[in-house]
Amino acid sequence: MKKNHSSDSKGLFWLYGHHAVKAALSNPDRIKTRLFLLPDEPRPQEAKSSLATTIVDRQTMEKTLPQGAIHQGIALEVKPLEPLSIDDVVRQTERKPVSTVVILDGVTDPHNIGAILRSMAAFDSDALIVTDKNAPSETAAMAKSASGALDIVPLIRVTNLARGIEKLKQAGFWVIGMEGTAQKPLRELDIPPKIAIVMGSEGEGMRRLTLESCDFLAKLPINSRMESLNVSNAAAIALYELSYKLKA
Amino acid sequence: MKKNHSSDSKGLFWLYGHHAVKAALSNPDRIKTRLFLLPDEPRPQEAKSSLATTIVDRQTMEKTLPQGAIHQGIALEVKPLEPLSIDDVVRQTERKPVSTVVILDGVTDPHNIGAILRSMAAFDSDALIVTDKNAPSETAAMAKSASGALDIVPLIRVTNLARGIEKLKQAGFWVIGMEGTAQKPLRELDIPPKIAIVMGSEGEGMRRLTLESCDFLAKLPINSRMESLNVSNAAAIALYELSYKLKA
Repeated sequence: MKKNHSSDSKGLFWLYGHHAVKAALSNPDRIKTRLFLLPDEPRPQEAKSSLATTIVDRQTMEKTLPQGAIHQGIALEVKPLEPLSIDDVVRQTERKPVSTVVILDGVTDPHNIGAILRSMAAFDSDALIVTDKNAPSETAAMAKSASGALDIVPLIRVTNLARGIEKLKQAGFWVIGMEGTAQKPLRELDIPPKIAIVMGSEGEGMRRLTLESCDFLAKLPINSRMESLNVSNAAAIALYELSYKLKA
Repeated sequence: MKKNHSSDSKGLFWLYGHHAVKAALSNPDRIKTRLFLLPDEPRPQEAKSSLATTIVDRQTMEKTLPQGAIHQGIALEVKPLEPLSIDDVVRQTERKPVSTVVILDGVTDPHNIGAILRSMAAFDSDALIVTDKNAPSETAAMAKSASGALDIVPLIRVTNLARGIEKLKQAGFWVIGMEGTAQKPLRELDIPPKIAIVMGSEGEGMRRLTLESCDFLAKLPINSRMESLNVSNAAAIALYELSYKLKA
């Protein structure tokens, strides 16, 4: 295991960059411990006056953050959010006429997970569900790729995905598995108003049990010379398509 | 500047992973110098018998490649492809009834560029044009993210983007700039059969001169709480949408 440079033994870690820091400052559920600013960086309006703030030089900033971090002069030490459950998702979406959630089966790359959260915030998706064993917990890299969305879209980690999917179905969600071998493209599918979209990892795809729990399978219309799209690109397309379908 | 671990003074660099290596082996224009295989990795059918092949242990493989490279037991030392020009693109697309090319103005992240090439290969796009000064040349990281598409989709580097766009227009391409402040979503645009789609960098967007050279501007319908999508995600959506529009 590589050392996680950006988290410490109390579970604290550093967010950095304007979008990620401002979204965390605006999130009442996010516990913040310290704000670091370069001398020429203004203190964000979103920062409460009680938040400990230190003006640091570039060298201190760089020693504090992972190597190569594009911090834009601002970093915020935070706690990971309190874990949510599928039951929370069900409660938060039960009165919504339309809803999408995304389920990632075995996707572990924090940049992909972050980019997917970002697209989900952009297309009004309600929760990201990841498999606990393989998916990384909140990290600085994920937060940076999410560009603020880690503090907007709930991230749920489940150990038993099949049971989680069952709960969503009972709450009225229909499960669409994105799978290259599916018969129909997503655009041609008639879909109900509550959708859980499932994506497998790029190499392996979904696990058999996950695949079997899907109500529908759908593909994206790609040239057969490519086996698949990058998983965050495929998720972005699916969310875009669903946003039109659910508006119609 | 960070040392580029994966290229040497002769311009050679290592591709790794099944997709990237097999695509390079299948590309007659790609000069290959050496193939490294772990002991349990079969020699790919695509490898000519004349290609120097060495069975190496895991340690040698890892020392040869950038740290953390997910090599899947296979690596190929290659030369960058011969540079192509806008004139080559014009020539290669002039008899095609429909064509898309993608132009990146100031996008420099090799993972994003690689992922965009991958989506372009998937959605039959004909060439990626990047601005020479800012964009990285072919690298192992780009090739890995491209998952073989670096050997499928021509990558063109131009120094004068405005002049390049002018040449494309003269060849019958219409230029659509993807821009968050545009009036119309891409889906609502009536489009001609030859399209150059322009994306700016995530922070800065397109440069003024690039923006002014666009025939149309289009946006993606995202929630205003997010400033933008990841550039490779936005490109994937645009290519997906265009693939349907150009089929219709």
